[in-house]
Amino acid sequence: MGSESKTNPKIVHGEAGYVLEDVPHLTDYIPDLPSYPNPLQDNPAYSVVKQFFVNRDDTVKQKIVVHKTSPRGTHFRRSGPRQRVYFESDEVHACIVTCGGLCPGLNTVIREIVCGLSHMYGVTKILGIEGGYRGFYARNTITLTPKTVNDIHKRGGTILGTSRGGHDTSKIVDSIQDRGINQVYIIGGDGTQKGASVIFEEIQRRGLKVAVAGIPKTIDNDIAVIDKSFGFDTAVEEAQRAINAAHVEAESVENGIGVVKLMGRYSGFIAMYATLASRDVDCCLIPESPFYLEGKGGLFEYIEKRLKENGHMVLVVAEGAGQEFIAENMRSMDHADASGNKQLLDVGFWLSQKIKDHFASRKKKMVINLKYIDPTYMIRAIPSNASDNVYCTLLAHSAIHGAMAGYTGFTIGPVNGRHAYIPFHRITETQNKVVITDRMWARLLSSTNQPSFLSHKDVEDSKKEEEEQTQLLDGENCKDGHHVFLMKKDGHHVKGVVDNGLTYS
Amino acid sequence: MGSESKTNPKIVHGEAGYVLEDVPHLTDYIPDLPSYPNPLQDNPAYSVVKQFFVNRDDTVKQKIVVHKTSPRGTHFRRSGPRQRVYFESDEVHACIVTCGGLCPGLNTVIREIVCGLSHMYGVTKILGIEGGYRGFYARNTITLTPKTVNDIHKRGGTILGTSRGGHDTSKIVDSIQDRGINQVYIIGGDGTQKGASVIFEEIQRRGLKVAVAGIPKTIDNDIAVIDKSFGFDTAVEEAQRAINAAHVEAESVENGIGVVKLMGRYSGFIAMYATLASRDVDCCLIPESPFYLEGKGGLFEYIEKRLKENGHMVLVVAEGAGQEFIAENMRSMDHADASGNKQLLDVGFWLSQKIKDHFASRKKKMVINLKYIDPTYMIRAIPSNASDNVYCTLLAHSAIHGAMAGYTGFTIGPVNGRHAYIPFHRITETQNKVVITDRMWARLLSSTNQPSFLSHKDVEDSKKEEEEQTQLLDGENCKDGHHVFLMKKDGHHVKGVVDNGLTYS
Amino acid sequence: MGSESKTNPKIVHGEAGYVLEDVPHLTDYIPDLPSYPNPLQDNPAYSVVKQFFVNRDDTVKQKIVVHKTSPRGTHFRRSGPRQRVYFESDEVHACIVTCGGLCPGLNTVIREIVCGLSHMYGVTKILGIEGGYRGFYARNTITLTPKTVNDIHKRGGTILGTSRGGHDTSKIVDSIQDRGINQVYIIGGDGTQKGASVIFEEIQRRGLKVAVAGIPKTIDNDIAVIDKSFGFDTAVEEAQRAINAAHVEAESVENGIGVVKLMGRYSGFIAMYATLASRDVDCCLIPESPFYLEGKGGLFEYIEKRLKENGHMVLVVAEGAGQEFIAENMRSMDHADASGNKQLLDVGFWLSQKIKDHFASRKKKMVINLKYIDPTYMIRAIPSNASDNVYCTLLAHSAIHGAMAGYTGFTIGPVNGRHAYIPFHRITETQNKVVITDRMWARLLSSTNQPSFLSHKDVEDSKKEEEEQTQLLDGENCKDGHHVFLMKKDGHHVKGVVDNGLTYS
Amino acid sequence: MGSESKTNPKIVHGEAGYVLEDVPHLTDYIPDLPSYPNPLQDNPAYSVVKQFFVNRDDTVKQKIVVHKTSPRGTHFRRSGPRQRVYFESDEVHACIVTCGGLCPGLNTVIREIVCGLSHMYGVTKILGIEGGYRGFYARNTITLTPKTVNDIHKRGGTILGTSRGGHDTSKIVDSIQDRGINQVYIIGGDGTQKGASVIFEEIQRRGLKVAVAGIPKTIDNDIAVIDKSFGFDTAVEEAQRAINAAHVEAESVENGIGVVKLMGRYSGFIAMYATLASRDVDCCLIPESPFYLEGKGGLFEYIEKRLKENGHMVLVVAEGAGQEFIAENMRSMDHADASGNKQLLDVGFWLSQKIKDHFASRKKKMVINLKYIDPTYMIRAIPSNASDNVYCTLLAHSAIHGAMAGYTGFTIGPVNGRHAYIPFHRITETQNKVVITDRMWARLLSSTNQPSFLSHKDVEDSKKEEEEQTQLLDGENCKDGHHVFLMKKDGHHVKGVVDNGLTYS
Repeated sequence: MGSESKTNPKIVHGEAGYVLEDVPHLTDYIPDLPSYPNPLQDNPAYSVVKQFFVNRDDTVKQKIVVHKTSPRGTHFRRSGPRQRVYFESDEVHACIVTCGGLCPGLNTVIREIVCGLSHMYGVTKILGIEGGYRGFYARNTITLTPKTVNDIHKRGGTILGTSRGGHDTSKIVDSIQDRGINQVYIIGGDGTQKGASVIFEEIQRRGLKVAVAGIPKTIDNDIAVIDKSFGFDTAVEEAQRAINAAHVEAESVENGIGVVKLMGRYSGFIAMYATLASRDVDCCLIPESPFYLEGKGGLFEYIEKRLKENGHMVLVVAEGAGQEFIAENMRSMDHADASGNKQLLDVGFWLSQKIKDHFASRKKKMVINLKYIDPTYMIRAIPSNASDNVYCTLLAHSAIHGAMAGYTGFTIGPVNGRHAYIPFHRITETQNKVVITDRMWARLLSSTNQPSFLSHKDVEDSKKEEEEQTQLLDGENCKDGHHVFLMKKDGHHVKGVVDNGLTYS
Repeated sequence: MGSESKTNPKIVHGEAGYVLEDVPHLTDYIPDLPSYPNPLQDNPAYSVVKQFFVNRDDTVKQKIVVHKTSPRGTHFRRSGPRQRVYFESDEVHACIVTCGGLCPGLNTVIREIVCGLSHMYGVTKILGIEGGYRGFYARNTITLTPKTVNDIHKRGGTILGTSRGGHDTSKIVDSIQDRGINQVYIIGGDGTQKGASVIFEEIQRRGLKVAVAGIPKTIDNDIAVIDKSFGFDTAVEEAQRAINAAHVEAESVENGIGVVKLMGRYSGFIAMYATLASRDVDCCLIPESPFYLEGKGGLFEYIEKRLKENGHMVLVVAEGAGQEFIAENMRSMDHADASGNKQLLDVGFWLSQKIKDHFASRKKKMVINLKYIDPTYMIRAIPSNASDNVYCTLLAHSAIHGAMAGYTGFTIGPVNGRHAYIPFHRITETQNKVVITDRMWARLLSSTNQPSFLSHKDVEDSKKEEEEQTQLLDGENCKDGHHVFLMKKDGHHVKGVVDNGLTYS
Repeated sequence: MGSESKTNPKIVHGEAGYVLEDVPHLTDYIPDLPSYPNPLQDNPAYSVVKQFFVNRDDTVKQKIVVHKTSPRGTHFRRSGPRQRVYFESDEVHACIVTCGGLCPGLNTVIREIVCGLSHMYGVTKILGIEGGYRGFYARNTITLTPKTVNDIHKRGGTILGTSRGGHDTSKIVDSIQDRGINQVYIIGGDGTQKGASVIFEEIQRRGLKVAVAGIPKTIDNDIAVIDKSFGFDTAVEEAQRAINAAHVEAESVENGIGVVKLMGRYSGFIAMYATLASRDVDCCLIPESPFYLEGKGGLFEYIEKRLKENGHMVLVVAEGAGQEFIAENMRSMDHADASGNKQLLDVGFWLSQKIKDHFASRKKKMVINLKYIDPTYMIRAIPSNASDNVYCTLLAHSAIHGAMAGYTGFTIGPVNGRHAYIPFHRITETQNKVVITDRMWARLLSSTNQPSFLSHKDVEDSKKEEEEQTQLLDGENCKDGHHVFLMKKDGHHVKGVVDNGLTYS
Repeated sequence: MGSESKTNPKIVHGEAGYVLEDVPHLTDYIPDLPSYPNPLQDNPAYSVVKQFFVNRDDTVKQKIVVHKTSPRGTHFRRSGPRQRVYFESDEVHACIVTCGGLCPGLNTVIREIVCGLSHMYGVTKILGIEGGYRGFYARNTITLTPKTVNDIHKRGGTILGTSRGGHDTSKIVDSIQDRGINQVYIIGGDGTQKGASVIFEEIQRRGLKVAVAGIPKTIDNDIAVIDKSFGFDTAVEEAQRAINAAHVEAESVENGIGVVKLMGRYSGFIAMYATLASRDVDCCLIPESPFYLEGKGGLFEYIEKRLKENGHMVLVVAEGAGQEFIAENMRSMDHADASGNKQLLDVGFWLSQKIKDHFASRKKKMVINLKYIDPTYMIRAIPSNASDNVYCTLLAHSAIHGAMAGYTGFTIGPVNGRHAYIPFHRITETQNKVVITDRMWARLLSSTNQPSFLSHKDVEDSKKEEEEQTQLLDGENCKDGHHVFLMKKDGHHVKGVVDNGLTYS
């Protein structure tokens, strides 16, 4: 998979610092493509809608907290149906593929693409690609109709099946070309969207009239630019069960410790929101916030303090937290041994073992009762809740309207509550992270009373570096308000990303 | 309760059409009020936060879908902690009151005000006013501490009790003055916020150093300006149960009809979102969309069609739908009779009876099996879900930061995902409505296939009137993108409100 | 439908008062019917089972609390597979019909009959009769296979559809005969089982080799002889939601009263168990326990007392409670008026109105806040829980084994935890009732503290009459320990049924 | 803890093979103990109950499937209130202790003992012993009142805290004696009941007027004699979530395998019932049914077959399954290594790893996707469902009535649906096991289609040995129908226990 995009970003500049980061269009590389009136205007459901069609010039502002004199900043093209479409209904041959891990709502998105294409645009040829990217060339397709997908939103998982990897650009584009597919809907995470970007480029290179639309999927909510990812709400809700159980287990024994591992390989959103929603958690560890175990201000000290105060505690840990610790730990172990200890790479296990060892080995032994809960698969596999269901519908519709209108090589999602078309690279080049110097994380610290694991000097250093960059704030050179900061931790520079425009901050 | 505000709105104008609708501040009427450094800067949890304090000039843009040359439009003051506060921690004497009907999340808001004041600002004197407004003068107060409210977010209802009415401005302000209360947190709907506004005015008139903060509450989501109200997500989720039950009941008998009444006296948001989330609903009736029963394009015709096609159907009706019908119905009945038929005012009952009568009385009888479900109290009484829990925390914190910073006479809520301080009148002067000429409602129509109950002429007329106003779009004279439109229905003009800036539209 | 059975009960007597109430067998009226070895003995799953086949002489004892010298009493034939069967696998042509109201577990029973016949006995011809009894002659049949029923246990309702009435014996038996059906599985309540009995008699009269098996269904748990009916557990569980909601609503207002109506037309088991399980209920009214509203010891007095003590109360009422009151009430109303007040026959509405009127009309007015919840359809429509799922499997298997073994004209169910074949008349001639002079009801009274609504004299009278019958206790003349008692209430004799052998008493 | 009981069982013989296995009574070792009329007869709730008091001679029959000429067999004393009690209400000083692991319903039992003693018998002195047996001598006690326990049944865990071990007979009895406690309620499993038995013996030896009542607790349902243990229903219900998740995960990938570990160290009841209730499980492994991995008829072969047929599979494994395999496995590993692999002792991990290794190492590699779910703590920690709540009430009341009536050294539970007093040794000497040669297990095999892992010879051998014992069936020498059988597996004799009288068989 080619790592660099051959297409130049489409940037439009306006007055007062207005910038539009636009997405490609079929007409960019296929001249004289005919267009047609949007059949929606004859649809009885839509005929009552005034201004149904999105104005050609509608754009969505990314930066919403502004000063009187702020430059207008970055905008994205608003999603929605256009006056004219570049596909006739009976010409459309769409396909849908789901890639990567499970996430609540996958089936809802599939259902809504099928029903949306069929009910809104009268499309009849829709295929499901089975088992992820490799299904394009290694498996048969599944015919999808509104009837076959009618109830699937009430089930978890994906009826199309999924897999990781399997991205072979030329085989995939061959398959698209050979089967005569002209709209490709790709549901998947970071890597999948990168793959979609490469597929788009190959299609463009071949000059095919094929629209490629990405629907970003990540239960971790770590996708940049968009407000939140589908399934996240459902996951945070379901995580409450595990936290409640950990709390009950911990409360019912002397020095009870409940440890819950939640999803989040590179970002701790699920852990943070689940902690904030629950109020029963005494400590939340996430990848973005380095922590240490031993010594003053360390985790062991805090655990001991909480047990002495309360008699029990609950600890939530995101799967990606403390990976450097574990890696170090692994290195120090015998190589021959390592293979047999693969599960130690699980931070929940590793941390549970470390805590047990610590309290077992202290000179003055302290008997603790630790229970470790890993609800990951029980969370991923549930159907999406009502809020995610509605959200998935909007995502599906955005993608459909965009593809029908001839946009391609785009991904979608809400930016400040308004759905927009976003260039692939904006989604894939960075990841959304919990900003540990932001108020939301401060709220968490305040609610759990856990230590920040940061020394005063760390903070000062971080602030100073920040100040040097402040003049860039909201400026052209600082894309969407993210800027890199460095935090010194034990003499190492820890790289982080600051998002000044976090939803709900 | 005085119906007209004596305070003039604080409006600030800027370049390129920038408008800030500001909220009052204690210093507006108390000169020389001393201020203090915000104690949060010494709070360990917050000490790591860079730029913790909201910049004095931060404002939140209301209109987010813009053109290159759009005027900048209305803004609100961003909520959040300020560098300087106008209360010392041990000086604060706060009180909390809940008014009106139940809504998931009330206890979470109470909890978070108490814990927020205590943990963030070190406040120790917090009272609960029992049983709504009348509790100020007719009941004893309850002492609230982080310990007493620790688990209440897991319970539905409100631990303070609630009631409707009971607003006696002078008695309430007397009580506030006599008890030495200086921060008043008022949680309630439309009417309650109007009452809060009047309390603020009386306090201002008396020149008291008392901050009045409103937290808007409505399970119906019909509060203007803000993105959504707390408890709404939970309500839509819980409504799925009733819809599922109606679906099962309807499917299991011949010509089964399941009727579910959902909350929404003046706006059909719960009904609309519950319908969109469920996909099992064949017809959704809301207050904003007039409908008729008999004749071509009417409800009876549609029901018969669905039964013949599918053998069953599910109908969701918001409690405020079709009120003019029912009222008319009542008038035509004997007066002596009316008292005994009070429950007919329930639209669910009324509609169920009408449907039964229709199919019983037809010349060629059609046997139907109608089951009516009213889950209202089962929805209102549940605890808030995880997403609403986090949201309630943010509301509580916004209110606290505002009051501490000396703002008063304000209500709060997210505007495009950013929390802001909003003048009372902006919340109370209009209500949020489902815009039936918007795409969200079109989505619903498309998903249910129900008739729009609008004639072509209605639509044309409406569009024409709209066009005449188009030049105002996004303009100064058209407050926050709402504009009135008129729709002719059976010769009457039906007044509606159009919101061009609906969340997620 | 013939009301009297033409077949004489098969009664077998043994030593020490042993009585077996047996069920009919095809060979009773078809001589020389060939039998075959049970194919289960070659089934790999069953081949490891020792003593798989039920011993021909196994019977289940009905009376389990005994004295050293008690007569052995009534027994039923134990259900289970027999050594020899009277149908060859490829000869079987089975049909399944569901009748009456919905009940959690209907789909599980259907699924398990289909899978059981198929997997255990290799049967391939299984039909579903659509829409209840009338489906035999007025609708097409549905082909049922293990594949088509695979997931239906996760859905509420019945995939076959259901209806009330429609029993036309000769048309039904004609249809059975014409279609060549030879095993009929009838799932339904009291009336349905009576219908099944008549169908069996007609089949017997015609001399057909058709086995008729009834699976008793009643969410109310009012079926005699058997331990409990399927769906009951699920219903009691789901009822907790409504009671919780009523509790929250009542607690959150001054003088709040939450009224919950639960299923139970003739027996109050759901109301009683839901009350015992919840602990939040202050009063439970059931059909078996007459109550009165006004005066000393009446309901109003109790409500006032609870409100004064606690500030709120929760009242659970079974749908059949107080019917005589309501009927009386109706009579005293104008006839012309009655039709418009049909919903007043709903005891929940009626009682709510009575309570409101009482407290509104008192000289010294007392403002109450009453909320009425009717969760009936939301309870009926859910899928069965795990415990009911396993139970439904056992019922289905019992029925299948019985039919294959040539038994007919029987119904099934657990008697003291062991599944047995029971003659129809034993199920239909009486109904299971809550015995209000039993300890379970006393437990409820003790848990709610509600008045018993019985005067001392009532109790004494009842006891005296009881004593006169005592010599019959456990005797031959008193079938299964039920005996009629009379209780004087306001001069009327109230007839009741005493069950000395209640499950879990 | 003494392992052998010094008290002789109280056995009463009657005619026709009637046997009563009675429980001790305070008067057995304290002569001339005064008795009092039961205060319940003056309790308004109970005053309406006819025959409220259990007849002195009521006994509950253990064997319920009988032949005409069967001997009457074993009986237990029926539980319930007695005409006369041996404690005056204000004399009672009760204590409650919970021991061992968590189980849904612990709090309900605690609540109901407190409320029952208080409301039924007017007892006011009730203590909670904190943290299990060691709390008697190492911790302070907690005062329990109906008010303090009012809502605890809605929470999981135990408010008293619990622990394993800590049984020091003389210290415990000293504490009982010193504090003046005269009723001891001990809630716990197998080992705890053994401890209770020893405490009783020591109390008897010291001649103290102290009643000792055991309430058997085991989420595994492996307690002998009684129908089922509290919390079991709730656990089976909650286990469905994990199985559903495993099913969704497995279905959504190619060759997906979902592995769920469920509780059951020595018996597989939860695994078996959860499998039967779910229908989505392809293989269920329990301690009672030995299995093997490699070769013909082994697990790997079956997995491969299912994957080829269905593309995915779900495997449920009880925690105690295959322990001999794992132990063997451990022995063959390096000792130094063993400590680092402690988690391999977890059968779920071990099995998952074995399956992965097998399919990774095959000559013709087969890529599988295995997801392992361990919901143990999430199941244990939930509150009991409605059905278990009612059951817990009955257990608590049985215990109270027994203690008040002077019975001691007993445990309680339903026998064929009727609650009875059971001697400790009957509960502790054997464990309830799934009988793999019984029909319930055959049902499971038939529903999953899994191999029985038994060779034909195994079965024949087992049957033969069985036959040799058959003459004992139902006889005096074979207590309650349990008899030992031997099954040859790979040349070893595997010992099992057969229960011919399993609930619901």
